[in-house]
Amino acid sequence: MSSKIADIGLAKQGQMSYTWARTHMTILEKIKMSNESKKPLSDYKLGFCLHITKETSVLIIAAKMLGADIAICSANPLSTQNDIAAFLSSEGIKVFAWRGQSERQYRECIESVLQFQPDILTDDGGDLHTAAHKSKTRFYGGTEETTTGVKRLEILQSRKRLKYPVIAVNNAYTKHLFDNRYGTGQSTIDGILRTTGLFLSGKQVIVCGYGWVGKGVSVRARGMGAIVTITEVDPIKALEAHMDGFNVQQLSDVSYIGDIFITCTGHCRIIRKEHLKKMKDGAMLANAGHFDVEIDVGYLYSQDKFPILVRPNVECFKCHDKKLYLLSKGRVINLVGAEGHPPEVMALSFANQLLSILFLSKNYRSLTNKVYNVPHEIDLKVARYAIEAENLRIDDS
Amino acid sequence: MSSKIADIGLAKQGQMSYTWARTHMTILEKIKMSNESKKPLSDYKLGFCLHITKETSVLIIAAKMLGADIAICSANPLSTQNDIAAFLSSEGIKVFAWRGQSERQYRECIESVLQFQPDILTDDGGDLHTAAHKSKTRFYGGTEETTTGVKRLEILQSRKRLKYPVIAVNNAYTKHLFDNRYGTGQSTIDGILRTTGLFLSGKQVIVCGYGWVGKGVSVRARGMGAIVTITEVDPIKALEAHMDGFNVQQLSDVSYIGDIFITCTGHCRIIRKEHLKKMKDGAMLANAGHFDVEIDVGYLYSQDKFPILVRPNVECFKCHDKKLYLLSKGRVINLVGAEGHPPEVMALSFANQLLSILFLSKNYRSLTNKVYNVPHEIDLKVARYAIEAENLRIDDS
Amino acid sequence: MSSKIADIGLAKQGQMSYTWARTHMTILEKIKMSNESKKPLSDYKLGFCLHITKETSVLIIAAKMLGADIAICSANPLSTQNDIAAFLSSEGIKVFAWRGQSERQYRECIESVLQFQPDILTDDGGDLHTAAHKSKTRFYGGTEETTTGVKRLEILQSRKRLKYPVIAVNNAYTKHLFDNRYGTGQSTIDGILRTTGLFLSGKQVIVCGYGWVGKGVSVRARGMGAIVTITEVDPIKALEAHMDGFNVQQLSDVSYIGDIFITCTGHCRIIRKEHLKKMKDGAMLANAGHFDVEIDVGYLYSQDKFPILVRPNVECFKCHDKKLYLLSKGRVINLVGAEGHPPEVMALSFANQLLSILFLSKNYRSLTNKVYNVPHEIDLKVARYAIEAENLRIDDS
Amino acid sequence: MSSKIADIGLAKQGQMSYTWARTHMTILEKIKMSNESKKPLSDYKLGFCLHITKETSVLIIAAKMLGADIAICSANPLSTQNDIAAFLSSEGIKVFAWRGQSERQYRECIESVLQFQPDILTDDGGDLHTAAHKSKTRFYGGTEETTTGVKRLEILQSRKRLKYPVIAVNNAYTKHLFDNRYGTGQSTIDGILRTTGLFLSGKQVIVCGYGWVGKGVSVRARGMGAIVTITEVDPIKALEAHMDGFNVQQLSDVSYIGDIFITCTGHCRIIRKEHLKKMKDGAMLANAGHFDVEIDVGYLYSQDKFPILVRPNVECFKCHDKKLYLLSKGRVINLVGAEGHPPEVMALSFANQLLSILFLSKNYRSLTNKVYNVPHEIDLKVARYAIEAENLRIDDS
Repeated sequence: MSSKIADIGLAKQGQMSYTWARTHMTILEKIKMSNESKKPLSDYKLGFCLHITKETSVLIIAAKMLGADIAICSANPLSTQNDIAAFLSSEGIKVFAWRGQSERQYRECIESVLQFQPDILTDDGGDLHTAAHKSKTRFYGGTEETTTGVKRLEILQSRKRLKYPVIAVNNAYTKHLFDNRYGTGQSTIDGILRTTGLFLSGKQVIVCGYGWVGKGVSVRARGMGAIVTITEVDPIKALEAHMDGFNVQQLSDVSYIGDIFITCTGHCRIIRKEHLKKMKDGAMLANAGHFDVEIDVGYLYSQDKFPILVRPNVECFKCHDKKLYLLSKGRVINLVGAEGHPPEVMALSFANQLLSILFLSKNYRSLTNKVYNVPHEIDLKVARYAIEAENLRIDDS
Repeated sequence: MSSKIADIGLAKQGQMSYTWARTHMTILEKIKMSNESKKPLSDYKLGFCLHITKETSVLIIAAKMLGADIAICSANPLSTQNDIAAFLSSEGIKVFAWRGQSERQYRECIESVLQFQPDILTDDGGDLHTAAHKSKTRFYGGTEETTTGVKRLEILQSRKRLKYPVIAVNNAYTKHLFDNRYGTGQSTIDGILRTTGLFLSGKQVIVCGYGWVGKGVSVRARGMGAIVTITEVDPIKALEAHMDGFNVQQLSDVSYIGDIFITCTGHCRIIRKEHLKKMKDGAMLANAGHFDVEIDVGYLYSQDKFPILVRPNVECFKCHDKKLYLLSKGRVINLVGAEGHPPEVMALSFANQLLSILFLSKNYRSLTNKVYNVPHEIDLKVARYAIEAENLRIDDS
Repeated sequence: MSSKIADIGLAKQGQMSYTWARTHMTILEKIKMSNESKKPLSDYKLGFCLHITKETSVLIIAAKMLGADIAICSANPLSTQNDIAAFLSSEGIKVFAWRGQSERQYRECIESVLQFQPDILTDDGGDLHTAAHKSKTRFYGGTEETTTGVKRLEILQSRKRLKYPVIAVNNAYTKHLFDNRYGTGQSTIDGILRTTGLFLSGKQVIVCGYGWVGKGVSVRARGMGAIVTITEVDPIKALEAHMDGFNVQQLSDVSYIGDIFITCTGHCRIIRKEHLKKMKDGAMLANAGHFDVEIDVGYLYSQDKFPILVRPNVECFKCHDKKLYLLSKGRVINLVGAEGHPPEVMALSFANQLLSILFLSKNYRSLTNKVYNVPHEIDLKVARYAIEAENLRIDDS
Repeated sequence: MSSKIADIGLAKQGQMSYTWARTHMTILEKIKMSNESKKPLSDYKLGFCLHITKETSVLIIAAKMLGADIAICSANPLSTQNDIAAFLSSEGIKVFAWRGQSERQYRECIESVLQFQPDILTDDGGDLHTAAHKSKTRFYGGTEETTTGVKRLEILQSRKRLKYPVIAVNNAYTKHLFDNRYGTGQSTIDGILRTTGLFLSGKQVIVCGYGWVGKGVSVRARGMGAIVTITEVDPIKALEAHMDGFNVQQLSDVSYIGDIFITCTGHCRIIRKEHLKKMKDGAMLANAGHFDVEIDVGYLYSQDKFPILVRPNVECFKCHDKKLYLLSKGRVINLVGAEGHPPEVMALSFANQLLSILFLSKNYRSLTNKVYNVPHEIDLKVARYAIEAENLRIDDS
């Protein structure tokens, strides 16, 4: 099989990005180095479906150094960095990914990975696992990066249709406590700064949702001088936001005061017609959630079919006699408007991935077709590597 | 039976404190008012073993208004506020408590509560439950306020010796997420301010432990201008502290820089000889944990048998050619040096207590002899009452 | 002359407080020690009019150790700590001060200090200087601690009636940048905690005024979890508050949402009838300014002649069908409800005082009858002593 | 005269940027609108030497709408945005600016502005004023944006060589309190995020200098989760940093712990050989000061003549067996790595510029050849406009 990518000429540029990321993902380097001599993955074929970013390339190259034979496609038709795809291909990885795929091309690339007949499948969102369950190939096991993907797999499990054991990497403490909170917190602010170039000090920022993502975004927005109000549906989380010193209000009551609205809920249709109508002229709308369903973009288009692009990733809708600015089309602002999570955070998540793949390769025979949490020893090991990478010192218990 | 208290003449003063606390514990008032007409506890005898504070009196009077017949003793020989004991007694509660009991008197008071033959037992720490398990009386059920007490009851359960169903109030989200973090956070700072009268801006504060209590203490110390360093044994918590912007170090490495040390671990012998030896002249030692075991007070006495009381609750030990100041004898600083948790936070914890007692009174027949979590509906109801009490508005889910 | 104090029997207790304060005012100790051998003040009689607190006793004893002969009265009829007065008296200082003086007694004590015929006068507020200008005695010079006192002296100067050179200690950077901001910031929070015992997390705190005091109070209130709104009359300060992430509103617009109001303006009648009428049931009123003129206490009494004392320093007024709580009678909350500025901060202010007195003793002959700023070398010297006392290290310029 | 710019075809793109900035600079719009009908500048020729950015274009177009005839060159050979230059040219402004000028071209463009024979000169840095003093033309007056430029003009004044009155816009409170602190604070963080893409939580950030810029950068770095240490030479500022809760250390003592170093001093050679030698592998070096003199870039080149560009604006030097990363060549990180100050802040500075130009046009005859501060009424007017623009409400004094 040969790769399908946009332009192999970008490989050198991709390598530069890879090197920068690797320098700041020392946890993965340490895992690689402590296992490299034994090549523990040399009898395994791995299939990946991930966002093709510089951080992902560090995971892929580490897995290759441990002996694996690898095919990879992208977890999203729009998120591939073509230079990284080219670099991975030049390193002998089978890559089926380019930026701006059609839905059909996206599906075909997933099929290409399955035709490679991987032993272990690593997915971000669950599309690879879903396709795998439709194929007749047998797999040793899989891992899953996201909450969404884990939920889809748990449904399969509850219907007794899960075909292989899966490790829910998302559930590791060293994944969701850090990636979802601090990672999204910083990169959402970064995305808003790059997209708008505006001042945050004194801005009225409305954060919808006070889960891990909302917590991270709120504390960083406040750290930049914004005045933050939280909207919530869960009274316990609302109370927590209040005790953390944030205003807590109903969205409809603060629609008219917000300068910037950021959805962090993971749910559909949070910002709707009734809120958009009340907003003040110039309000900005951003989404930090995984899917582009939290802001009712359809309603905006129903009011203004031809919004004007006033800056890259900033569209101006004329709507109820005022201007509303939609950032990055309501898609996840940190990936579309900035570079996603910084490498130091992805190192934690991908360390869990790599150790879970190693764990599966050794233990798949004794596992049943269930969704497993990441073994706590792996979680602790990742934390200990991170402590070392950050030059921290902790006490003996 | 008649009360045993220090001085009934203090009842009026106690009533004043009760009224102030009740005004700021509207959640409990609401629960009381929405149940008062039916007197749902009128067939029940309740036995309590709690710290006799103004906040506790609000719980006790609310339970009485719902019809209960009540006896109470203290959860600690030193924590009783004599004016509150007098006030409760004047309201017809059987009270067996005064400040400064001997160990034997303390035990006798617990026995007095049991001789009252209560149907439901509410405890803080587990001493009442332990005594109840030695008696031949039968009980309908019980509740427990603390982590420590819950642990003791779970041991009984694992040995199949638990005699009645118990609700672990400590495990409610609206208890431990708020009481342990924000409550202890503020009241520990309050205790240090009242005890020392010193300046916190720019002080090097070493917080041992980054659990809920450590998190609360750290963020409030930083909020007062201190420079905070965390010591931990758990790499995941250490990493969290680091991402929250705190220095993370080994205690022995920072022993020589700390101005104030605050233990928040719940474990024994955290600050020991090897740390005390390294400390600088004038260092201060405080404990925010439940028991006085976190600082090795014995070692201090071995170095200086006659420490000087330089301010109320501040003892100066001459030790290794320098002065070390022990605050409130290493006992929990927020209760000894200040007034414990503020009423607004205790309202959350005690709302869980009152609703759990009501729940037990209705359902004890269908429960088995197990440790139960607080039913999630109760947890949510407390949160909703608090949302209302704080004038917050949340969205419909 | 012999002292007039409340009870010489309190001297030992006063010494204990003095020692604790001195331990934390090492700057003053260093100044004392580097001058002690020469006894530079041995030919001088010093007259002081200051709040008689433990911190003041450290200044007085230091001046005595440098050779001075000293008389002191209190800068306020209510602020004297009787144990400190006793301690100073037992050390040979002439003390004319006790807690709870009548206005006439207060004036007589000032006269007693003047009859001592001091060479140099140190004042807090300007009452001693005013009295000195009515006497026929000649003085070498004086110093003044407060903004208010400096203003009164500048009026005398503008009328060409100033009788001796005065150093405006208040104007030193190492005085007003620290004392007014961080000192008042912490001690105001401390005063509110001790007075009310209530929870600050999530409380709506309205801070009137965003000068140095307002800045300090706001940042510490936020640090304790409160939601802070600023009211201002100066658009530049209002904008600064806004950029610091605070809500900025008109007082009448936020009167109905505040849980705690804190005046920090130095002006009269900030919280008036129209605001009090709008406040919600249970609102609390505190003043951080020097004089008790910022809250219209008269209006409260016109509504309720007999407010109830619900806790020490907390009076409940029934007013417009609701309860309003006045803290410490609207007098400066940090001194009445807590212990005033912590010693580390007073060390900065009093180091300026002591060095200014030494400067006057050497240079009074060459000075004219003007209000002088503290010489910048003294300001820098105090900063450098503080840097040393706090174990900080700075770079060479 | 006709413009000299890079590409007039970029005018439309420039207009889009202009419109976005104008939308967020409503203060300038208000000034423009309240004066527009009278065309008060219609008899005046204005000469500008500013960074040609989208914010500058809003000032220029506003001045044009008030009737002025305008010529402009750039204040820096590298900072011109070519699309803005094209847009201004298409609007009838004489523009002499393109990105990447040689030193000689830069000087020639300044001369072109002077040949236009402007009545009033507005400068950023002082190069235009210096050239004007060498020409024989007479000018009515000038304004100056920066501290540096003001210093150069004050030297001319002290030598009695100043040829026309100049208003020091930099000295307005509404300029330096906001632009230097909050503007640079945010945009420096923005520049570091865009340049490195790295994680700030838990990073050891060393900020050199605690003036307005250092204060702004420190508080925002802490707001993003970094652990911030300050180095200073001034003991008063060092003490202030300490009381604000920052570590204060000598640079040589913390050289080995810093992950990111940010110079904010305005002085030369702050980070030198002795510091660079001690730094750890991977340390990053950024400058927030106006000139590229704070980091000893020359020493880096002496160690590694051919640094590798590992990301845009990130050069890796091999130096003493480790890698050091220099961001944006040690040039001001917020302009080179991001977009400079956000428009809301520039609106404050440029409102002072526009009102000062209007003031000069009315009053130049009565002014002498001195450096004047911005009249306080202008400062207050700008603050009031900003209060209105931000929808704040302040109290009447």
